[in-house]
Amino acid sequence: MSFRAKIQGVGGNESYTARAQALKDRLDSQIPPSLHLEQTYLDNLPLDVTGVPASCGLLTPAELAITELDATSICEKIAKGELTAVNTVTAFGKRAAIAHQVTACLTDFFLDEGLQRARELDEYYRREGKVVGPLHGLPISIKDHIPIKGRWGSGGFIVNTKPSADDCDMTRILRSLGAVFYVKTNQPQTIMHLESHSCYGRTLNPHNTNLSPGGSSGGESALVAMKGSCMGVGTDGGGSIRCPSAHCGLYGIRPTCYTLPTGDYISYQIGQDGYATSTGPMCNSARDVQLFLEALFGAKPSLVDPSLIPMQPTIPDLSQKKLRVGVMMHDGVVMPHPPMLRALELAKAKLEVAPNIEVIDYVPYKHEEGYNIVRAMYFEDGGKTVRRLLEEGGEDVHPLSEWVISPPHVRHHDAVDVWRLHDRRDTFRRAYSDHWRQQGCDVLLCPPFHGTASRHDTAKYWGYTAIWNILDYPGIVFPSGLKADPSVDVLRAVGSPMSESDEYNRSLYDPEAFIGAPISLQVIARRFDDGLVLAAQEVIERIIKS
Amino acid sequence: MSFRAKIQGVGGNESYTARAQALKDRLDSQIPPSLHLEQTYLDNLPLDVTGVPASCGLLTPAELAITELDATSICEKIAKGELTAVNTVTAFGKRAAIAHQVTACLTDFFLDEGLQRARELDEYYRREGKVVGPLHGLPISIKDHIPIKGRWGSGGFIVNTKPSADDCDMTRILRSLGAVFYVKTNQPQTIMHLESHSCYGRTLNPHNTNLSPGGSSGGESALVAMKGSCMGVGTDGGGSIRCPSAHCGLYGIRPTCYTLPTGDYISYQIGQDGYATSTGPMCNSARDVQLFLEALFGAKPSLVDPSLIPMQPTIPDLSQKKLRVGVMMHDGVVMPHPPMLRALELAKAKLEVAPNIEVIDYVPYKHEEGYNIVRAMYFEDGGKTVRRLLEEGGEDVHPLSEWVISPPHVRHHDAVDVWRLHDRRDTFRRAYSDHWRQQGCDVLLCPPFHGTASRHDTAKYWGYTAIWNILDYPGIVFPSGLKADPSVDVLRAVGSPMSESDEYNRSLYDPEAFIGAPISLQVIARRFDDGLVLAAQEVIERIIKS
Repeated sequence: MSFRAKIQGVGGNESYTARAQALKDRLDSQIPPSLHLEQTYLDNLPLDVTGVPASCGLLTPAELAITELDATSICEKIAKGELTAVNTVTAFGKRAAIAHQVTACLTDFFLDEGLQRARELDEYYRREGKVVGPLHGLPISIKDHIPIKGRWGSGGFIVNTKPSADDCDMTRILRSLGAVFYVKTNQPQTIMHLESHSCYGRTLNPHNTNLSPGGSSGGESALVAMKGSCMGVGTDGGGSIRCPSAHCGLYGIRPTCYTLPTGDYISYQIGQDGYATSTGPMCNSARDVQLFLEALFGAKPSLVDPSLIPMQPTIPDLSQKKLRVGVMMHDGVVMPHPPMLRALELAKAKLEVAPNIEVIDYVPYKHEEGYNIVRAMYFEDGGKTVRRLLEEGGEDVHPLSEWVISPPHVRHHDAVDVWRLHDRRDTFRRAYSDHWRQQGCDVLLCPPFHGTASRHDTAKYWGYTAIWNILDYPGIVFPSGLKADPSVDVLRAVGSPMSESDEYNRSLYDPEAFIGAPISLQVIARRFDDGLVLAAQEVIERIIKS
Repeated sequence: MSFRAKIQGVGGNESYTARAQALKDRLDSQIPPSLHLEQTYLDNLPLDVTGVPASCGLLTPAELAITELDATSICEKIAKGELTAVNTVTAFGKRAAIAHQVTACLTDFFLDEGLQRARELDEYYRREGKVVGPLHGLPISIKDHIPIKGRWGSGGFIVNTKPSADDCDMTRILRSLGAVFYVKTNQPQTIMHLESHSCYGRTLNPHNTNLSPGGSSGGESALVAMKGSCMGVGTDGGGSIRCPSAHCGLYGIRPTCYTLPTGDYISYQIGQDGYATSTGPMCNSARDVQLFLEALFGAKPSLVDPSLIPMQPTIPDLSQKKLRVGVMMHDGVVMPHPPMLRALELAKAKLEVAPNIEVIDYVPYKHEEGYNIVRAMYFEDGGKTVRRLLEEGGEDVHPLSEWVISPPHVRHHDAVDVWRLHDRRDTFRRAYSDHWRQQGCDVLLCPPFHGTASRHDTAKYWGYTAIWNILDYPGIVFPSGLKADPSVDVLRAVGSPMSESDEYNRSLYDPEAFIGAPISLQVIARRFDDGLVLAAQEVIERIIKS
């Protein structure tokens, strides 16, 4: 398959095709010719394109060095005067342009605007001798459906793709803290796939372009993995921060809902109360996750958005405490693929001999039922709105869209049906909470997905992330340090499938297919225990990588 | 009208009538003959029956003295060994029996069970020399739809009236803190009136039995005003704690939702997410409100109920701070009756000359729109469930039930309609929050109702309480110390009505009708500012009563 075919966007009728082409032309034209990679270069890319920025010759050594830093380092260096906002934004902007050409990760590129803001920030710093806020000069990439004033954004369909009239709370706050915007990133049709294929194109996984970077914040994960950004903002209603972060070897957190602002994020089911979408950072270090959260909570977003709970996670000191870590090898529904099992087994073995850790064999509680409830809540109108928006835009129904809005999980609800469904949700939450207490663990270590990054158009089991969405338990993913390796990740002898989903996902495994894909793990804690999630992840990662 | 006719319950068909009679017979038989008031006594009661317990001769001076104490005093005395649980429960039990006979406030009377528990607590205290918890030996009355194991409870209809299989979280926690249960209290058909008329009877306002004690926690307000209880637990989804507390001259708080447990409260619309019902105490002193909240939050209910936010209100020290108090004389929809205006004007005048207080003339923001949205959310199924439950029980549709489930406010919604309605709610909340900030007040002093207690079957404007339910702003009501007085509360010259509701409520005013009714006020703060509400109410009450 040619590279051009690989990144081909979702199709549609004539009017759709013209509109999609105009969007792609606009995006292509935003990337300056000086940053273009040649077509022959693109046609001869290796599967792993993470080395392209260093080898393509378009970045200076200084720019490469800047873009290898994490956000915490960048903010520190800018605050000390060792780095300017202009140099930082230039470096990440150029690298983002390169990243986009090899992964189709962007939907809007506006480096000029970013540089304008960077100059203002540098000027402020020179004049005042201090930073405007904790994110002064930090370039931050933003998922397409999160509005930035004047920039393109969409709610997952071509019909709601347009420039945004205003910043949303999140981007307004980030701006006030000193962040610089320069790109927006791709997401899938409907924003409800764990992949990222839209009218703009199909985003590829930089570690293996035959694989998906995950979704729905897959533009972010591909871009951050390419280091075209060191801090991205995503959203997660079923795994959309954690899945793509995991697939690309990043750190990504889904905070407890209604703690960070999502007001005015573009949505086509606004007002639905069945499940909530959380928002959070995707980045290359755990400390960057903390940097983002501390900066955001410090801005007291609940004073502006009355839907928010005025809570700031406090990070407990675990150094003097025995941490009880539940380990869940599988969820009773889908058996993880061999690479994931290998990483989990290794992690468990290391945790078992670590001081101050008590490992508990975690027994999952009715994950299939929980997943089924949340799937029903995703489209309480039976998918009617999705079909209408696709039809209005002349947009083809993506196979994953068709799957996600189809019966039996999805059906039309009237008010009483909605109440019954939400009652099932609340009953499940209560039972799960009782179960969690009985298990006696502080946090849970578990897979963020049944495998590494999936092959395109196959991600049909969200249970490893979505179960925590229905429960609203905060969760962070992080790289285990391992990658899928066909020489060791051979098929294991297994019995009969645990479920239909298990049978389907088992059929997808082929040791060769996933080569080079990062293997990531997930740490979960109870609702509102976001601080514990952060503290425990740090302890667990240190042990696993020791 | 004979006394018997005054307290007559809701009617229905033959099967309903038999069932209702059985419920009333059961309740009557629970009250020991030694505590019966004679029929001639009942037929010659004054309008104000608050003096009955002292004058009827059924209580000893010691019992009268105990029941005049507030909950804080009782807990202190029991903890010091100056009072026993048995004596306390006996006194309140006897007084509750008397209260019921003159106000029809109860639905279940089980003093024996309460005394059994009281004996256990006294025994524990003697043995261990300490209390089991902060509410050791305190008799607490419980609204009918809040389950107590083995006791009668209902969801507002005869068809769901039955003994409860188990305690709910609230009663389980209260029990663990040392509380003693002995009565349950009346609520209206549907639990959605600001009055309290059910199959058990019509609850009367002890200060003027021609008036309603308010609702839906009107059994509680009548009982606590009669001092047949010093601490009641109610619920508030539209004013159901604050309205009855106000009408009976009590202290009652509606805390921010999802801070105190309502799990397993009997409901016929379980799973609806449009608005939430809060729960809280109704009592005779502000410090008793704090006692209840501190005890409950101290039990960390969020560890058991995953829907709860693990927050404990902190009460700010206002002594060194200028408190900005908004004063709202009317909500732009319904002009308060003369007694309420008199109390507000007096309060405002005193606040204006108080040191450390800045009075702000608060401009209401679209209260009619907010009230209309919350009314639509009360019955998103168009009232279908209510009609079904009434029909299944052969229960007459109460005129206030018919009103509350009727168009245009109430109509059938499918899932998409529900989303749109909730979006209207969220948009309103955001706009109101912006408006509140612009007004620049810390707290708001406003009417809890357009007047004092209403005449039976007339309470059709909930705007003064329900507006804070849609916003989820915590609010406390407290007695101004004034009572309706026909000699001063004469009709004022007014212009044309502000709304249909205004015209209706204006037509209800007659200076003679409301004689003796307490005039109460309400203090409101932003969502989650429950601690500020408590602190500010104390300051404001002190100034107003100085």
